[in-house]
Amino acid sequence: MRASRYLIATQKETPADAEIISHQMMLRAGMIRKLASGLYSWLPMGLRVLRKVERIVREEMDKSGAQEVLMPAVQPAELWQESGRWEQYGGELLRMNDRHGRDFCFGPTHEEVITDLIRNELKSYKELPANFYQIQTKFRDERRPRFGVMRAREFIMKDAYSFHVNAESLNDTYQVMHRTYCAIFDRLGLDYRPVEADSGAIGGSASHEFHVLASSGEDAIVFSTDSDYAANIEKAEAVAPAGDRPSPSEEMTEVATPEQRTIEAVATFLKVDANRCAKTLLVKAEEDDNGNSGLIALILRGDHTLNEIKAENLPDVAEPLTMATDEEIEQVVGCKAGSIGPVALPVPVIVDRSAAHMVDFVCGANKEGHHLTGVNWERDVALARVEDLRDVVEGDPSPDGKGTLEIRRGIEVGHIFKLGNKYSKAMNATVLDENGKSAILEMGCYGIGVSRIVASSIEQNHDDKGIIWPDAIAPFEVAIVTLNGHKSPAVMAAGEKLYEQLRQAGFDVLLDDRNERPGVKFADMELIGIPHRFVVSERGLAAETLEYKGRRDEDKQDIPLAEALPFLISASPRNGL
Amino acid sequence: MRASRYLIATQKETPADAEIISHQMMLRAGMIRKLASGLYSWLPMGLRVLRKVERIVREEMDKSGAQEVLMPAVQPAELWQESGRWEQYGGELLRMNDRHGRDFCFGPTHEEVITDLIRNELKSYKELPANFYQIQTKFRDERRPRFGVMRAREFIMKDAYSFHVNAESLNDTYQVMHRTYCAIFDRLGLDYRPVEADSGAIGGSASHEFHVLASSGEDAIVFSTDSDYAANIEKAEAVAPAGDRPSPSEEMTEVATPEQRTIEAVATFLKVDANRCAKTLLVKAEEDDNGNSGLIALILRGDHTLNEIKAENLPDVAEPLTMATDEEIEQVVGCKAGSIGPVALPVPVIVDRSAAHMVDFVCGANKEGHHLTGVNWERDVALARVEDLRDVVEGDPSPDGKGTLEIRRGIEVGHIFKLGNKYSKAMNATVLDENGKSAILEMGCYGIGVSRIVASSIEQNHDDKGIIWPDAIAPFEVAIVTLNGHKSPAVMAAGEKLYEQLRQAGFDVLLDDRNERPGVKFADMELIGIPHRFVVSERGLAAETLEYKGRRDEDKQDIPLAEALPFLISASPRNGL
Repeated sequence: MRASRYLIATQKETPADAEIISHQMMLRAGMIRKLASGLYSWLPMGLRVLRKVERIVREEMDKSGAQEVLMPAVQPAELWQESGRWEQYGGELLRMNDRHGRDFCFGPTHEEVITDLIRNELKSYKELPANFYQIQTKFRDERRPRFGVMRAREFIMKDAYSFHVNAESLNDTYQVMHRTYCAIFDRLGLDYRPVEADSGAIGGSASHEFHVLASSGEDAIVFSTDSDYAANIEKAEAVAPAGDRPSPSEEMTEVATPEQRTIEAVATFLKVDANRCAKTLLVKAEEDDNGNSGLIALILRGDHTLNEIKAENLPDVAEPLTMATDEEIEQVVGCKAGSIGPVALPVPVIVDRSAAHMVDFVCGANKEGHHLTGVNWERDVALARVEDLRDVVEGDPSPDGKGTLEIRRGIEVGHIFKLGNKYSKAMNATVLDENGKSAILEMGCYGIGVSRIVASSIEQNHDDKGIIWPDAIAPFEVAIVTLNGHKSPAVMAAGEKLYEQLRQAGFDVLLDDRNERPGVKFADMELIGIPHRFVVSERGLAAETLEYKGRRDEDKQDIPLAEALPFLISASPRNGL
Repeated sequence: MRASRYLIATQKETPADAEIISHQMMLRAGMIRKLASGLYSWLPMGLRVLRKVERIVREEMDKSGAQEVLMPAVQPAELWQESGRWEQYGGELLRMNDRHGRDFCFGPTHEEVITDLIRNELKSYKELPANFYQIQTKFRDERRPRFGVMRAREFIMKDAYSFHVNAESLNDTYQVMHRTYCAIFDRLGLDYRPVEADSGAIGGSASHEFHVLASSGEDAIVFSTDSDYAANIEKAEAVAPAGDRPSPSEEMTEVATPEQRTIEAVATFLKVDANRCAKTLLVKAEEDDNGNSGLIALILRGDHTLNEIKAENLPDVAEPLTMATDEEIEQVVGCKAGSIGPVALPVPVIVDRSAAHMVDFVCGANKEGHHLTGVNWERDVALARVEDLRDVVEGDPSPDGKGTLEIRRGIEVGHIFKLGNKYSKAMNATVLDENGKSAILEMGCYGIGVSRIVASSIEQNHDDKGIIWPDAIAPFEVAIVTLNGHKSPAVMAAGEKLYEQLRQAGFDVLLDDRNERPGVKFADMELIGIPHRFVVSERGLAAETLEYKGRRDEDKQDIPLAEALPFLISASPRNGL
């Protein structure tokens, strides 16, 4: 491509509303432009990257035996009503009416559509397992779209759905997809980790997320120091403290704690550590059989935080997790939230494993402006129910018993699920099994955030001059910069000749033949992040040399003109493929 | 690909609701499945064809110098309000509200979005001309979706938009696009014609449509017998009859025509040909400056039909064309529609060129159940205004003066427009010109119906056994059918060996290794339309031969096993590329 005929839409200024590096650099390098909140146009330079990511995903999916399909973006409400998600899915589902007033949505995911397709198409276990994928534009009407294409409303996703006659077959394909995802992210040059994850609203029995490690990541990822254990903090188990709970050594005493409403305030006021205080949270309970919904108390150690996913997954806690209002607390307990505690609390109590190990602890007295000290489980208050309720913290023991936990930030770029029969059962998707009996299909689903990968790669590959693309997804692999080519026909001719030579060898080449100052061209090529750069100049031609600089190199070097191609081949990762 | 691991979703029965061949065959061959009215999923077999069409379109667009972008499918109403189309575009625009209640639509086309992008991105004539395209999912909420992917609501389109500092530059790019479209449709193996077209609601000064000729086509295409003239009937000019109008020879006489309400009835009743009768149509006139809208009369020869586009393009006729109601006619004229005529009609009259040449003609008397005979222009009624109002008919003289017109059916697969400044003016998209002055951009736009091409190709390439794909877009170029391979390891091994050999030579191969009867396999491969077929059998192996049959061949032939690849190369059009 000749830069003079190409949209090089670089910008010097960092856009004010772009918070993270990838968003800033994609705007500055002319990769994307904002149309409206969470809606982005891909300019030619950015689209080249997106297409290369797509191609790698497609090639590896094909290699895994998955079959590519393309389902409509617009989906009829009837299928979502059949699965039950038309009601469950909240504001993220973009709903619309067609000209006849019928309900549709812009698909954020395609479980219903593929299940409908397959229940009509496949009849026998002999046709299974089968795995279908598509690479497609999705829409999720995020409440707060942000970070450019990282969390856009319209985005490109690879979604795959597998179908099985039994759980063993699902398990096999799940493992194949796990390996395929690793192959994809390896080829994309990402520093990533597969981690255990909660299967969440999409349902199912097991799932793994694939996270790109980056400080801007929105997820906290937990690793063991001594094993392969890795999990999203949403899922990571906080194991029970070792040993028995120590015996009480203090008497329970009521103390006045006027105006002390937070754990920190109470701990400071009473001169104890926060880990000696119990935190009591009141949340809505699941409705009982009569449709009545009360409150339920969750008790944590004062220095721990509630893991909302773990709480929500408890059958007696209402989903979604809903904190009790101040009014509800006052009505039920008779004091404000800052003074409640488990002793004589008139609602059921669930105690976190670590909180259950506390001794001689401090908690609210259920009396405005008062706390209890020297409280002990069983002696002062029954310990009826203990659960894992909290987020793990650095230094916690690893759930697999090997080492302790570390926490880093991650960007979720892939997610694989064992759905089981959640959708196939609701939508009556069956085949005949080996015995000629109707069997409900087992399903898996497997997503990759294709457009998000572009931003994730930048989060991991940049410096103060701009993006540093891995060769595999660079918009162009090599730039040829002609210095003052508009004044020197010899420079322009040499640039053109090299351009043709490298193109014919199969490289994606950008010939920067623009009538711009050298500094502008160099800055643009670095901002755009092209991995390899040759400079053609009159001075160089006189010595029959070119200047070469790799995007990560400190220094440039002179290369004999005749050796440009073999040099590039040896410098490119293609050499090793 | 191995058929045993691939979704071969063929069906024996012709689906009852599929009216045209391509729709029937795409369903029967397992290429598409209906999700809802006008919404189709592409199964693996169909998607392979679609992707090959996309690739050819992309390659030729890239070759033309156009740059690929990707704009959001979901577009904010504000831009459509700026261009004025939010109000003008009717029920085909799928509108929706996001979670904050803001107005959006699912883009049926992207003039507004690209114009907004470019007015922010390009500043100087030096950056022009520039042509941007995308291949993307669009939505048009058709009142009556039909014919499968031929007229679906959700479909894939290649849309391109070019920007220019003056009309000459637009003209140059328009010619480049015309040539590019020919190159695309040539490579796709379509029998097509570029024809002059009305530029319609999208606006602009000139346009050409590209039509695939097929009897199922929804458009009538007009050709000259003796020249290159070709036009959509919407646009084709009906030239004025040669010579002067003959002199009157009859007196004007009122005759009773009780219950005779149509041209045919009146002509039969009065024993004259329909071409001796004048047809008078009352339509809504454009509003005057005071906002009042009356009626206007259009007079045609009785054997001619009104061309609604031509009528609508007249400045004094309301757009969209709206026929007067029975009530309005009775109120204004005092009789029913069947008895109206131009003589003493109390509304303005526009006469078609051919009708203006009539002599001693019959028309309604503007008196219920009565007509006039022997009517003559000027003598009996003024001939104030003559226009081209009618559809051409076979045998009409060609507008270029060479030969006469023939009419065939066409499927529109491409459309190129000179938009001029319709959008750039409304949206104030300017650049600085050579003199440093702000100049409104000239624009062109260029569409191709990518998914429609798949169906169009089938309309032109099929027989009673199924589809006959051109090699360039066949889902697989060659099928290898193993006969009773599950019983014969030698057959299976020879099939696998040939499969690897042809694949490595770069062919898209489907190895039909299914455990099915030979007749089922042959029928499937023919229905799916794979251009080349090899059969591996025990009998053949004993003679070291394969059976070969081209999809269009009458007879099969035996080929030495060792010569399969060179034979295929010589039989494939790749040989000539």
